[in-house]
Amino acid sequence: MGFLGFTMFLCLLSVARSQEAMDIDIDLLPRALIIEYPETRLKNTSEELHMQCTSWRVAGESNNLSPWRTVPVECGDYVKAYMLGRSYYFDLEMVSKEAGGYAKSLQLKEDGMDAWIFDIDETLLSNLPYYSDHGFGLEVFDSDQFDKWVLEGVAPVIEPTLKLYEDVLKLGIKIILLTGRTEDKRNVTATNLMNVGCRKWDQLILRGDNDQGKPAIAFKSEKRKEIMMEGFRIIGNSGDQWSDLVGTSTASRSFKLSNPMYHIP
Amino acid sequence: MGFLGFTMFLCLLSVARSQEAMDIDIDLLPRALIIEYPETRLKNTSEELHMQCTSWRVAGESNNLSPWRTVPVECGDYVKAYMLGRSYYFDLEMVSKEAGGYAKSLQLKEDGMDAWIFDIDETLLSNLPYYSDHGFGLEVFDSDQFDKWVLEGVAPVIEPTLKLYEDVLKLGIKIILLTGRTEDKRNVTATNLMNVGCRKWDQLILRGDNDQGKPAIAFKSEKRKEIMMEGFRIIGNSGDQWSDLVGTSTASRSFKLSNPMYHIP
Repeated sequence: MGFLGFTMFLCLLSVARSQEAMDIDIDLLPRALIIEYPETRLKNTSEELHMQCTSWRVAGESNNLSPWRTVPVECGDYVKAYMLGRSYYFDLEMVSKEAGGYAKSLQLKEDGMDAWIFDIDETLLSNLPYYSDHGFGLEVFDSDQFDKWVLEGVAPVIEPTLKLYEDVLKLGIKIILLTGRTEDKRNVTATNLMNVGCRKWDQLILRGDNDQGKPAIAFKSEKRKEIMMEGFRIIGNSGDQWSDLVGTSTASRSFKLSNPMYHIP
Repeated sequence: MGFLGFTMFLCLLSVARSQEAMDIDIDLLPRALIIEYPETRLKNTSEELHMQCTSWRVAGESNNLSPWRTVPVECGDYVKAYMLGRSYYFDLEMVSKEAGGYAKSLQLKEDGMDAWIFDIDETLLSNLPYYSDHGFGLEVFDSDQFDKWVLEGVAPVIEPTLKLYEDVLKLGIKIILLTGRTEDKRNVTATNLMNVGCRKWDQLILRGDNDQGKPAIAFKSEKRKEIMMEGFRIIGNSGDQWSDLVGTSTASRSFKLSNPMYHIP
């Protein structure tokens, strides 16, 4: 990522205003519509690196990035600091509050068929203890190692999502858990969730034998379609991956939780 | 936005590891899966405000926010500093590079019907000179005042998008400009674009009389449908509003450019 700083508009503004004052047809004039971008200042400073890594993170949150396997090596320290610091928590809390405000604003029907989908990993449960031992996304994903961690069943809850979960439950909305975890993790996942305070859900949907090898976006779209075929209206969907949220049979509103550590296509 | 700081996982990790060492069935044990969130530290500091406003900005970029009319007053200084500083430019450049890499990766057909849609305001042309006189989004949008600025025809180009524009043209992809500006701005818009270096496009689509009052998301979806009916494949779409990008007849890939100053539903 190269850096171009820039000086803004002052020259431009003064040109524009003086032309206006002279009452000239400004569309006919050639104009120096230039923003200058000096190339050198502050190159490779830590401040610049922080901004570049923030741009990378925000590009991911905006679904602008192509699939990626690991955090860019130059952003390893940035991602670690972000995940362990307060910014991550602020971001989770902001999204939880937006989602909660939206849920409360809805006129729900009385048939009990309004549903909210929650993803699990990095949405309700945090795998940060695992990723803190594995470079916060710098290492290529190792499914065997990760499975061992999942089978411990000790992932902590993501508090702002639990708050949303409880708000949604109180409103009488059905909760459907939809995860890329495989069926053999059903019991440990349910126990882990209950231990951290997720005490009630309508369905827990995991990847079955027929779902192996499907990209997450296809698997989750199919499952949402099945949920809708059962008569549910999916009014909300919370996930940390765009592949939790986009595709087909999408929710009325989707909420993207922050996750700069890994990408699931 | 309240602040809860948090201390991470150390207690949890040590509990988990010691249970494992004792070879106990860890799923049966009650566990203290708790992250502690002390409520007080650093409340209302400028550092905290910066993080909260970043969370708000990123929530917007992630399409997590409900429609909003003005920048939150406490984030006015933050947005001004962001727009005038290097972070905004870094963000634009990151998205331009991702989009350009994607465009170059495509196997284009030779029929000349691959198309890329560009929005105009805050995508190809910057209205920052206008917004710098109007609170960088703190003021409620004033269409009369804004129209006067647009009719000056002196909006500067957004350099990273112009770079993408030129890359896309070189690849032989057709460029279609799709804007919420109204037909009466056609000439001034075209002249402004040519003056800043956008010298070739296939179509310039503005809001006609029949499009008045339609939400942007509906107007742009309809126009994309018409473009597709003409036989174009919309392989890319660049816009600063989610309403430029989502809806129906969407592009194969969409690129969300940063804009924390205003929201168009």
